[in-house]
Amino acid sequence: MEEGFLAGARVAVVGLGLMGGSLAAALASRRACGHVVGVARSAGSLEMALGMRFIHSGTTSLAEGVGGADIVVLATPITDILEKVRTVGPLLKPGCILTDVGSTKRAITQAMEELPPHVEPIGGHPMCGKETSGLAVADQALYRDQTYVLSPLPRTAERTVAIMEALVRAVGARPLLLDPERHDRLVAAISHLPYALAVALVNAAEAMADGDDLAWRLAASGFRDTSRVAAGDLTMMGDILTTNRDHVLAGLHRAQEQLAALARCLEEDDAEGLQALMRAARRRRLEVYG
Amino acid sequence: MEEGFLAGARVAVVGLGLMGGSLAAALASRRACGHVVGVARSAGSLEMALGMRFIHSGTTSLAEGVGGADIVVLATPITDILEKVRTVGPLLKPGCILTDVGSTKRAITQAMEELPPHVEPIGGHPMCGKETSGLAVADQALYRDQTYVLSPLPRTAERTVAIMEALVRAVGARPLLLDPERHDRLVAAISHLPYALAVALVNAAEAMADGDDLAWRLAASGFRDTSRVAAGDLTMMGDILTTNRDHVLAGLHRAQEQLAALARCLEEDDAEGLQALMRAARRRRLEVYG
Repeated sequence: MEEGFLAGARVAVVGLGLMGGSLAAALASRRACGHVVGVARSAGSLEMALGMRFIHSGTTSLAEGVGGADIVVLATPITDILEKVRTVGPLLKPGCILTDVGSTKRAITQAMEELPPHVEPIGGHPMCGKETSGLAVADQALYRDQTYVLSPLPRTAERTVAIMEALVRAVGARPLLLDPERHDRLVAAISHLPYALAVALVNAAEAMADGDDLAWRLAASGFRDTSRVAAGDLTMMGDILTTNRDHVLAGLHRAQEQLAALARCLEEDDAEGLQALMRAARRRRLEVYG
Repeated sequence: MEEGFLAGARVAVVGLGLMGGSLAAALASRRACGHVVGVARSAGSLEMALGMRFIHSGTTSLAEGVGGADIVVLATPITDILEKVRTVGPLLKPGCILTDVGSTKRAITQAMEELPPHVEPIGGHPMCGKETSGLAVADQALYRDQTYVLSPLPRTAERTVAIMEALVRAVGARPLLLDPERHDRLVAAISHLPYALAVALVNAAEAMADGDDLAWRLAASGFRDTSRVAAGDLTMMGDILTTNRDHVLAGLHRAQEQLAALARCLEEDDAEGLQALMRAARRRRLEVYG
């Protein structure tokens, strides 16, 4: 039934960057819904998306794009998603599903609670991405085999959840229902903390090198991989850290404790303690990735 | 002239793991020297290395292997290198060059200072490796285009440096002369600190997940890359951290400062300060890797 609804649905994708452009492309190329309308700030992006057949129609007007849509996907930066969630309600038709692809879920779903009752909100977070952002690198295969978190609100109807699960499967991804609080705590651990540690690593290495640029010439695969995410987009990562502040702070404190424990073992010549910390990390890493 | 010496030289490689096995293989396959003798604890390793034509002859006896050698390369774990440097002197013929492939240089070159005067010591650190260790993954191409640090002692003759530079080039690597103290400080920043941060990341994420194993299912490429080196060999990494303790401790303190600075920005809602830390790291990462 939900597949039937989806097959005829008009889907508006607001924001045609990597995530939005790829979602539109997957929906259009797989004929997963009736019509994909793209909403972007620039006419150039719309032309490009139309030329690549990522969207069936496009507009720079939010009101025009979301009016009449059955499903609206907000795929802009988190601060912009928050602003649109607060203002888009009156533009949506009764029963319209409003979702998003933001990397944190608590702040966004809290804002969604305030939507007028005729709107059907549900949070979303596709766990995929690329090094670089923008429509030029959008790819209809981006979502394939990836986990796509859906965070229903207490007010979200079961039918809405089922329709969104169908949409997620239609773009090749695996839906995972997750409460916003648990989502934000877990992604703080496995995504936001790695970013913070990569930033700390590069800045600490810079301080240690102390102007000796030979350091960077000596850097091999260990530094390259450990620091990779520090090259992430500043706006996106700033939004993520500030909208998941409590959990990120908890993670930073845990990491500081771990660094202090390593330092203590070295200072006290505690070879056994050092090996225990190293062994625990190695075992978990091998369990997760083999 | 040094190439001429090398062409006729008898080279003993002590320890046929990934580094020693690959070095022997590169020397033998490129006909870079007159004879490669492998020294290993197990007869099985020697058979395997002989079968793969990595060595011309092999022995489980250190005295037999290094006696008569023109160049001896110690390619065992750092603690074993340190022990052998302290005891191998009387087994070496006059003028024999003694070098190593250990990942830290200060402790090893300090021990080399105590060698009898008839020995020509020089530290070495090829900046290459693999995820996994052992002769089975040894590869004659491992050294190709990699930086190979040479750390002469004050007592090291210029001719010894020239011969080792010729050997490094003969296996396809690029020699880089580097004082042991500067080497250890720089590799603490770009190799040992990344390892410590990866260990801290995995253990901190474990504490944050608090038994919720969904965390590991959500882990994507960010966590995978940032934590990769935490799977490193425990003996090797333990040796590295303890023989480079001062610089690693300095790095851990720098990293703790950086994490505290990130936490302070989040606690004080200092968006500009946060962006400045993130921007500095992003700029350096992009400068190093593009």
